[in-house]
Amino acid sequence: MTATTDDALLDPLFDRRFKGYPRTRPPMRRSEIGQAGWHVLAGDLPLPLAVIKREALEHNLAWMQARVRQWGIDLAPHGKTTMSPQLFRRQLDAGAWGLTFATVTQLAVGVAAGARRTLIANQVVNDEDLAGIQMLLREHADLRVVFLVDSQAQLALIEDWAGRHDESLPFEVMLEIGVEGGRTGCRTREEAIAVATALHRSPAVRLVGIECYEGLGATGETGPDTRYADALMDRVEAVARHCDAQGLFEGGEVIVSAGGSAIFDLVAGRLKPALKAGVRGILRSGCYVTHDHGFYKRMLRAVDQRLGCPCEDGGESLRAAMEVWAMVQSRPEPGLAILAVGKRDISFDLSLPVPIARAARGSLAPEAVPADWKITGLNDQHAYLRWDDAASPQAPVVGDRIGLGISHPCTTFDKWHWMPVVEQDYRVSDAVSMHF
Amino acid sequence: MTATTDDALLDPLFDRRFKGYPRTRPPMRRSEIGQAGWHVLAGDLPLPLAVIKREALEHNLAWMQARVRQWGIDLAPHGKTTMSPQLFRRQLDAGAWGLTFATVTQLAVGVAAGARRTLIANQVVNDEDLAGIQMLLREHADLRVVFLVDSQAQLALIEDWAGRHDESLPFEVMLEIGVEGGRTGCRTREEAIAVATALHRSPAVRLVGIECYEGLGATGETGPDTRYADALMDRVEAVARHCDAQGLFEGGEVIVSAGGSAIFDLVAGRLKPALKAGVRGILRSGCYVTHDHGFYKRMLRAVDQRLGCPCEDGGESLRAAMEVWAMVQSRPEPGLAILAVGKRDISFDLSLPVPIARAARGSLAPEAVPADWKITGLNDQHAYLRWDDAASPQAPVVGDRIGLGISHPCTTFDKWHWMPVVEQDYRVSDAVSMHF
Repeated sequence: MTATTDDALLDPLFDRRFKGYPRTRPPMRRSEIGQAGWHVLAGDLPLPLAVIKREALEHNLAWMQARVRQWGIDLAPHGKTTMSPQLFRRQLDAGAWGLTFATVTQLAVGVAAGARRTLIANQVVNDEDLAGIQMLLREHADLRVVFLVDSQAQLALIEDWAGRHDESLPFEVMLEIGVEGGRTGCRTREEAIAVATALHRSPAVRLVGIECYEGLGATGETGPDTRYADALMDRVEAVARHCDAQGLFEGGEVIVSAGGSAIFDLVAGRLKPALKAGVRGILRSGCYVTHDHGFYKRMLRAVDQRLGCPCEDGGESLRAAMEVWAMVQSRPEPGLAILAVGKRDISFDLSLPVPIARAARGSLAPEAVPADWKITGLNDQHAYLRWDDAASPQAPVVGDRIGLGISHPCTTFDKWHWMPVVEQDYRVSDAVSMHF
Repeated sequence: MTATTDDALLDPLFDRRFKGYPRTRPPMRRSEIGQAGWHVLAGDLPLPLAVIKREALEHNLAWMQARVRQWGIDLAPHGKTTMSPQLFRRQLDAGAWGLTFATVTQLAVGVAAGARRTLIANQVVNDEDLAGIQMLLREHADLRVVFLVDSQAQLALIEDWAGRHDESLPFEVMLEIGVEGGRTGCRTREEAIAVATALHRSPAVRLVGIECYEGLGATGETGPDTRYADALMDRVEAVARHCDAQGLFEGGEVIVSAGGSAIFDLVAGRLKPALKAGVRGILRSGCYVTHDHGFYKRMLRAVDQRLGCPCEDGGESLRAAMEVWAMVQSRPEPGLAILAVGKRDISFDLSLPVPIARAARGSLAPEAVPADWKITGLNDQHAYLRWDDAASPQAPVVGDRIGLGISHPCTTFDKWHWMPVVEQDYRVSDAVSMHF
């Protein structure tokens, strides 16, 4: 590993052991894939295959960056979505302030990919994790790592570790505010202030910000989502003001952070509360990068309405940039096709995949599929595609290629080691790797 | 790749980018891990961590091999469960006739791990896949690959490919018999015989067997499961007898194959129908290798009853050999602990993980957990552990390590690149790698 980035991480060698890599081609570096002249619909790559559409990807990167600029805040996209060093670089190159991770293993990949301002949007409690952060900080003098604390019990574990490691640097931490019935984070103002006070007093840590995650409460309905986000951000702001007034924050500026990809617009305007200290508002959305055809598409309808998208100039908001292509392997009954793609290849945790296109054998031109085509189930390696009109002349046949939209990018990315990046016509122009 | 096995595949180098690898240790080969002196409960490895218990693994390997020996059939375990070259070797060393795969990418990993008799329990339809099989056959003169055909449409695609590749060897295929309302496979006797006849006539393929998959119909109730398996195997046998009588099978022996891991005992006795040709009955169970604490545990209760296990000598049947350990990161509300483990780390497709043990911070001796502890939900990186008695003195605390049983081995294996193999006391004695 060099002092800056790890070339092998950014430009790994792919071979036929990588799912989706052409079986009869020699191993090739990621940077060479775009010159190989491959075309997904010409059958140059085996199916199933997850692909990223370059134009939609670049649109999304630019769109979200423009939004945070407009809102006067910064973006530290959640890297756990993609765990792709090349996508991390694209996000940083597009102007992201830094990157967010969920674990120290993810952080190490991000740092190797060049990230230097990093958040861990999670409690760190484990000796091995604390040691791992210290090691990265020692290896990279310009690295910043900020993680979450939500209890004095957690602080006690950090202090215990620090007490056994005299040479360690203080950990930068943010106080997490949570929601009753939700996940992590302090539930009450009293508890939050008690934790903040303990963090301020502890030599093991530096309290540099305050944080929450609003995404789990999102419904896609503007009324309840607005009330929910406002109530949460009111609590964050009240605790932030108290900590600010009491001088509990340390360092030159206070980080105020929130943000999944479902109702990010409802928290974005609340990330710069008026404090005595300077404030850096940081949004952590991750799924925006490829967006989807399922859960986030549904959530974005309300976001679009609130933001007035598509805008008068026709500019749209996020576009679905990921598709998984699979082949019909069997047509065993009327109204049923079995596709060679399954739980190992595509997300199924928020909803099932959505058939969006079909390319007949030999065709380079995909067509939209009838609205009654549905994926009704997945096994480990198979998908069930059904349609209403069992006798339809449009019915899929064995050998057809079916393009599937996904629901939830995180759980499709983690099923692949690499994905080709394709142009509008499915010509392969680049590739990315994933490191879960 | 050597002519036999690929050393780098069997003995890969692990480093801190592998989830679960100690962050502060130098990279190490798999074969060195057992000598590192690590202990999971001593905190030598970061959590979450999936571990395989050596004694249970070895028991399962021997138990299933003894069963098929008793039944007079062979085992070609489904490799898609683990995709682990080291576990493939253990299965072959335990006496497995060969290995089964779902895709050609999986097949290539298995062949590199040393498999030479292989089944693809799936339709192969894709040009790239057909070419990949031919390439492997050319690379390994002793390799046998048999895949499934269930339609003349599929055969036409194979013939089309073979017509464009004069030098190709005939593909060995089995006829698949399916179930109405099920997945792949011929639904009627007429259809099956028509496909078999076409396969027999085609120079592109050699019909060497007949196959079905009974696992999707399993309920865990002996009455309906027996009727279901018998009806399916009756149909397989009837078609097999017809093909045998008509001389449609080619080669010295006829493969008759079935078998998932849920009701394998109900099909095992039906894999040697009396044919004129010699018959090789092959069971393809995959999940038996680690078994689980969820879906397959429930299914095995009925298997045990039918087989009379535990036997009079006290010998038990399959044991759960996989656990995922995670740390309590937050105790935000009474009756709720958040564990640092999620959809990225553990299966959730058949049922949620099951808390089975707790090791307090510093303790090397895990204790069983109260029966009211339940995992009630998973996010990408978090699990929700709840219990009834919110004021219980036994309640978990931040820093506790919780051992989780899994439900469905396939979808936990595919979330890891390596797993340590542990002794009963959680000392690390070996490791395996996964190649999904």
